[in-house]
Amino acid sequence: MELSFADARELAIDVLSSHGLPSDHAAIVADHLVDAAGAGHAFAGLPRVLAVIEHLKDFPAGEPITITQKTRNSAVIDGAQNNGYVTSLIGIDKAIELARETGIGVVSINNTWFSGRLAYYVERAAREGFIALHTASTQARVAPAGGIDRIFGTNPVAFAFPADPEPLVIDFGTGMTTWGNVLLRRKLGQPLDPDSAVDKDGNPTLDPAEALLGAFLPWGGHRGYGLALVVQVLAVLSGGKIVANDVPDSGFFFLVIDPELLLPAEEFRQKVGELVAHIEASRPAPGISKVRVPGKGSLQKRHIAKVRGTIEVDEAVYETLVSLRNGPQAAA
Amino acid sequence: MELSFADARELAIDVLSSHGLPSDHAAIVADHLVDAAGAGHAFAGLPRVLAVIEHLKDFPAGEPITITQKTRNSAVIDGAQNNGYVTSLIGIDKAIELARETGIGVVSINNTWFSGRLAYYVERAAREGFIALHTASTQARVAPAGGIDRIFGTNPVAFAFPADPEPLVIDFGTGMTTWGNVLLRRKLGQPLDPDSAVDKDGNPTLDPAEALLGAFLPWGGHRGYGLALVVQVLAVLSGGKIVANDVPDSGFFFLVIDPELLLPAEEFRQKVGELVAHIEASRPAPGISKVRVPGKGSLQKRHIAKVRGTIEVDEAVYETLVSLRNGPQAAA
Repeated sequence: MELSFADARELAIDVLSSHGLPSDHAAIVADHLVDAAGAGHAFAGLPRVLAVIEHLKDFPAGEPITITQKTRNSAVIDGAQNNGYVTSLIGIDKAIELARETGIGVVSINNTWFSGRLAYYVERAAREGFIALHTASTQARVAPAGGIDRIFGTNPVAFAFPADPEPLVIDFGTGMTTWGNVLLRRKLGQPLDPDSAVDKDGNPTLDPAEALLGAFLPWGGHRGYGLALVVQVLAVLSGGKIVANDVPDSGFFFLVIDPELLLPAEEFRQKVGELVAHIEASRPAPGISKVRVPGKGSLQKRHIAKVRGTIEVDEAVYETLVSLRNGPQAAA
Repeated sequence: MELSFADARELAIDVLSSHGLPSDHAAIVADHLVDAAGAGHAFAGLPRVLAVIEHLKDFPAGEPITITQKTRNSAVIDGAQNNGYVTSLIGIDKAIELARETGIGVVSINNTWFSGRLAYYVERAAREGFIALHTASTQARVAPAGGIDRIFGTNPVAFAFPADPEPLVIDFGTGMTTWGNVLLRRKLGQPLDPDSAVDKDGNPTLDPAEALLGAFLPWGGHRGYGLALVVQVLAVLSGGKIVANDVPDSGFFFLVIDPELLLPAEEFRQKVGELVAHIEASRPAPGISKVRVPGKGSLQKRHIAKVRGTIEVDEAVYETLVSLRNGPQAAA
């Protein structure tokens, strides 16, 4: 079904607030989820309200988040077990502030939990004219290449660059699959893609239930494993655990750079735009209509949704959220 | 055949110097090549002397390299068409110097050409206690995923982290294959690996000669393509061309960070070492003897070579280098 942006946002805020999230935090989460839905990432949209309120039982919100400025260009944030949608917004804004002052900002966050689409945060920096790199370790589910034990999270990484006319945003996970996707396949009774996971004994499996007990495999063989390891090490630098067995063991890393440090910012924006246009105008492979540029699809979908004024929400998710609107007691 | 480190270095210096490279530059290149050979990267070792002197015909060395300090934490280097082995050593050392002063250093190099193993530079920073990220665009040979035109170079990326007892060094290219590998396969009459390249019309090919006329494919599908694009954009930021049609159109980017900005440096080194040890002690997949950590193999080979005191050099390469020792005239 279709919901207006305003109605979807209000519904998300109501459910989150009535389940213990302070209203300012609820608004931050809702803005993120509605944006994700508009950008075509249905799974990262309103269904996440349910995951957040589930986690709020174990990690009650509202303890004060502390920002410790370490140097002129770095800050460490203790998330006090608040959710990552809130802490990461504070983190990227702090990194932007530092970059505005010194040209570069580095920020770490620990003691927090999931934060949605990393693209959301880096795009925010790029729209302010900055380059951003953001990585996050997540709960351990992925084995190293050649291994079968869970060591890494699905460890996403995101980059954004200011560009004309729109920022270039590149983000991806370093696991072959995601926790959410495996849960969904199990629910739908669908097998996993080949080479996605191993069972608890390390044998390849297509069974989502076996994969949940075993480990996911890293994307991209030894090179992808290398990148997963980089994200894990940046998480350790950010105060995360070596292996994130529990949800708040993650570490989030933010780096924001003013392009002006190396090249006139206007020239950089223009050249990145030219590179993007050059790629889009290049010859596609047989059977492909057009060469795609990462992130462009999300930007276009969001643009269309904004013009239309609505986002698509699964009807069952909507009904559940409405039933939870007045808090857990009301739903019970 | 086996050559002592000292003899190999002296031979490389003699050939490079007698072909127009200033002796201080020749020593820098020779140190790099001998190190690469010792670390088991035969192709990145002494054979590269031949490639360098070939390129010196088009790009004579010795014009002054200029370093322009842009801000307290950034510098732009004009390589004046000197080779990248020399300019990149200056670049990483400048970035380390800036990081020592302000916690972070960002350095770009343009107007230069190939620089060997990126791992060499980032490891240098890690041994000084710093985290380093280094990317380089190279001559256009790789198509975007879904495309068939050469837009990216094989665009390598390298990361290094200080760790106990040895730095963690992770480096890889973002193309399915390398120019050098395709040349070698052509010479040996061997086909390429599947999905490595397309011919000039965009049809998949296993023929190295056709691939040299066409384009290589990116590694890792859409995600790997995203990373190749990141390297290309960082090269643009570094003064490189959008598409590097000629050798000196590349852009090299260096970022050096003091871990102390976010975590006590000693704690970071120790934890990264623990993570590495944890991975190595984890269960290997069936048929694999041990889970490997990126970069470890190179470090071990270098250690063994140093103990032995020699590197392995191809006999034909050795004979050629000896014949060139007294300059191009002597060889003719």
